[in-house]
Amino acid sequence: RLVAYVTAAGDTPPDAAAAREALDEVLPEHMVPSALVVLDALPLDANGKLDRAALPAPSFEATTGGRAPRTPREETLCALFGEVLGVDGVTIDDDFFLLGGHSLLASKLASQARAALATELSMRDLFEAPTVARLVARLDAAGPVGAHQGQPLDILLPLRGEGPRPPLFCVHPGGGLGWSYTGLLRHLAPDQPVYALQARGLTEPDVLPASVEEMAADYLEQIRTVQPSGPYHLLGWSFGGLIAHAMATRLQDRGEEVAVLAVVDAYPDNAQALPGAPELSKRQWLGVLLDDIGGGDIFAPGWLEAHPDGAEGTADLVADLCRETGLPPRLLAGETSFPLLDILLNDQELMRKFAPERFHGDMLMFRAMEEIPGYRRDALHVADGWLPFVDGALVVHGIPDHHYRMMREESLDRIGPVIAAALDRAGS
Amino acid sequence: RLVAYVTAAGDTPPDAAAAREALDEVLPEHMVPSALVVLDALPLDANGKLDRAALPAPSFEATTGGRAPRTPREETLCALFGEVLGVDGVTIDDDFFLLGGHSLLASKLASQARAALATELSMRDLFEAPTVARLVARLDAAGPVGAHQGQPLDILLPLRGEGPRPPLFCVHPGGGLGWSYTGLLRHLAPDQPVYALQARGLTEPDVLPASVEEMAADYLEQIRTVQPSGPYHLLGWSFGGLIAHAMATRLQDRGEEVAVLAVVDAYPDNAQALPGAPELSKRQWLGVLLDDIGGGDIFAPGWLEAHPDGAEGTADLVADLCRETGLPPRLLAGETSFPLLDILLNDQELMRKFAPERFHGDMLMFRAMEEIPGYRRDALHVADGWLPFVDGALVVHGIPDHHYRMMREESLDRIGPVIAAALDRAGS
Repeated sequence: RLVAYVTAAGDTPPDAAAAREALDEVLPEHMVPSALVVLDALPLDANGKLDRAALPAPSFEATTGGRAPRTPREETLCALFGEVLGVDGVTIDDDFFLLGGHSLLASKLASQARAALATELSMRDLFEAPTVARLVARLDAAGPVGAHQGQPLDILLPLRGEGPRPPLFCVHPGGGLGWSYTGLLRHLAPDQPVYALQARGLTEPDVLPASVEEMAADYLEQIRTVQPSGPYHLLGWSFGGLIAHAMATRLQDRGEEVAVLAVVDAYPDNAQALPGAPELSKRQWLGVLLDDIGGGDIFAPGWLEAHPDGAEGTADLVADLCRETGLPPRLLAGETSFPLLDILLNDQELMRKFAPERFHGDMLMFRAMEEIPGYRRDALHVADGWLPFVDGALVVHGIPDHHYRMMREESLDRIGPVIAAALDRAGS
Repeated sequence: RLVAYVTAAGDTPPDAAAAREALDEVLPEHMVPSALVVLDALPLDANGKLDRAALPAPSFEATTGGRAPRTPREETLCALFGEVLGVDGVTIDDDFFLLGGHSLLASKLASQARAALATELSMRDLFEAPTVARLVARLDAAGPVGAHQGQPLDILLPLRGEGPRPPLFCVHPGGGLGWSYTGLLRHLAPDQPVYALQARGLTEPDVLPASVEEMAADYLEQIRTVQPSGPYHLLGWSFGGLIAHAMATRLQDRGEEVAVLAVVDAYPDNAQALPGAPELSKRQWLGVLLDDIGGGDIFAPGWLEAHPDGAEGTADLVADLCRETGLPPRLLAGETSFPLLDILLNDQELMRKFAPERFHGDMLMFRAMEEIPGYRRDALHVADGWLPFVDGALVVHGIPDHHYRMMREESLDRIGPVIAAALDRAGS
């Protein structure tokens, strides 16, 4: 999105609306900024240059110039977009994810749209057709209710399926869900395809992999169906970083090029990590999983606490969780263990046994600078741990939050542009 | 230097001399490779591309095309270059440092040339005029014996004083001597000026700084005499990395641009390091200082061991050391303490108290991957330690040797090209 920052040339403070009107008159439509922010002064760095990082993010608002809804169905969908996103005047050309949508809001929208329109609209539909206009066209093309094949638990889930560039493949963290990567979309070029890789066990009951290497091989088969040869772009948060590294070294063994490899707060040496599963209640495990699914506290503050403790409260929590996220109840069924927890615990076991190969090239790394409240950071979890497994430069960016908040908006505001720049360099 | 790697197109092994002659005929002189290496096959990486890092370094040899000596004095100097460097056919246009010369060989050459030519030739003369032709011109211009001002212990020592680019300033490690940075010269563009910053206490008896910040301010005054404004390029090995970082943040506070900041195996947190000076004999301290001066074991293997233990052996060691390095005996005079040791111990004390500011931009870091034999690595000495003090990317390269060997040829073969590329990017 094009954002304009405006300061006064003289003593009169500038008027954003007047400035936008003036721009509308002289610029072609695609060059008119979608947001206009008035500042007292432009932020400068120590060298007197524009400090881009210090520019405030614009508040999200609907694009000027989009088309108004043309049918009652489009009207309903525009209203739902606006309600879920908290944005006024949504047009049929506004992109759900560029307006600040993320996976849980997508789930909410899909659920409300299903109810309002009596149609089979899924999260995946929204990933692949993120504007009202494209969503309506997709629903029309799909025909009768129930015709959709794609599901949000698919192993290879397109978060943005279309575009001419080589895709960015984002590997799920522990627990197996890759929805949290939707938060990256608004930072990447609009024509940059993005896929999430998700655990096979989400859709195939009782299927648990025996090693990170097995997962890497499985996921490489998946990505070959959409990109048969390199250059490949791989990213992984937490446990997903280990899988992404293993996929990258396997690709290089085959002679394929890996242009971008990025890990978000992942560390190769987990010998000291979680020696045996801690004794947590189902309710506590659900809290851990919410962090993995939502990328931190995307759920409204207090949402977890709003459900009373104990068996009944936990049952309510599971029901609400399934409704809010669209997770099938099967994955959360069970008193002391349940399928999603089995996936998480198996991932943690594989993480401890992982022995990386050496990656030939540079690797991007984002390191959470804060400790998880109540946990002391593992002494082995330092960026240096990767150096034996990377023979180019290890390019480290510190992110001022903790591990479970790396997919939050504030963290992605830092991570996203670095990934976008790396993808641009790889493509140039 | 341009190096050609040659492989056979058919079954006949290529002939390097014939290939060079053929190139001489068709290429202009400046495009003829200065070295020609015959290989069975070009090394390829996992992606089937040329693996540049795996190409063998050419053995040093005199440039083809240089001029033969024209006077008896030039003949003597060419012969001394050849003898000290172990190279045949040195011309008056061959660069001492591009032929593999380093600080201790420079000291040796200066000493032998003084004896052979009865002239006041110093190491600094060689840094500033590294070919026989330029050295002779410099000696002629300087006039009678004793007219030279520059000394190898100067606070701001030009290692390569001429060139149109902004200089690279290299800050001394603990102990205060910056000679070991001469090993970088052959990796940098021939027109890249390089200066070493050295401790004031080397030339001003009993002057010891009270803080890293005081040193940074002092050295910034020095570099302003040759470069009044940015962009600045700063590098430091070990303790010098802390000073370089402090200089960089001070420059940014003043609004100056720091384009390249590179630290070689330096870490900001030294709270656990060396709590009080260890009890070492003078002989043992000399061994430590030799590491700092020579960048590892540039001295011939066994050189230290060749001097018998005990007071007499230590006196011999001091005498040999002064002769080999050109260090004034004053710096090594004293039984239990001596001026060079005072500088080293004071540096270690300042290192423990150092509290860095935050650098705005990317920082290059080279991390020694091996432990110093007999020492266990300080747990605080991880690259991550810099992240709170760098707000751009921390770009880390692992170097497969230990701390005291970072200025050895093998390590500089990895460090040098990365620095050269960073300087090139900064200049483009």
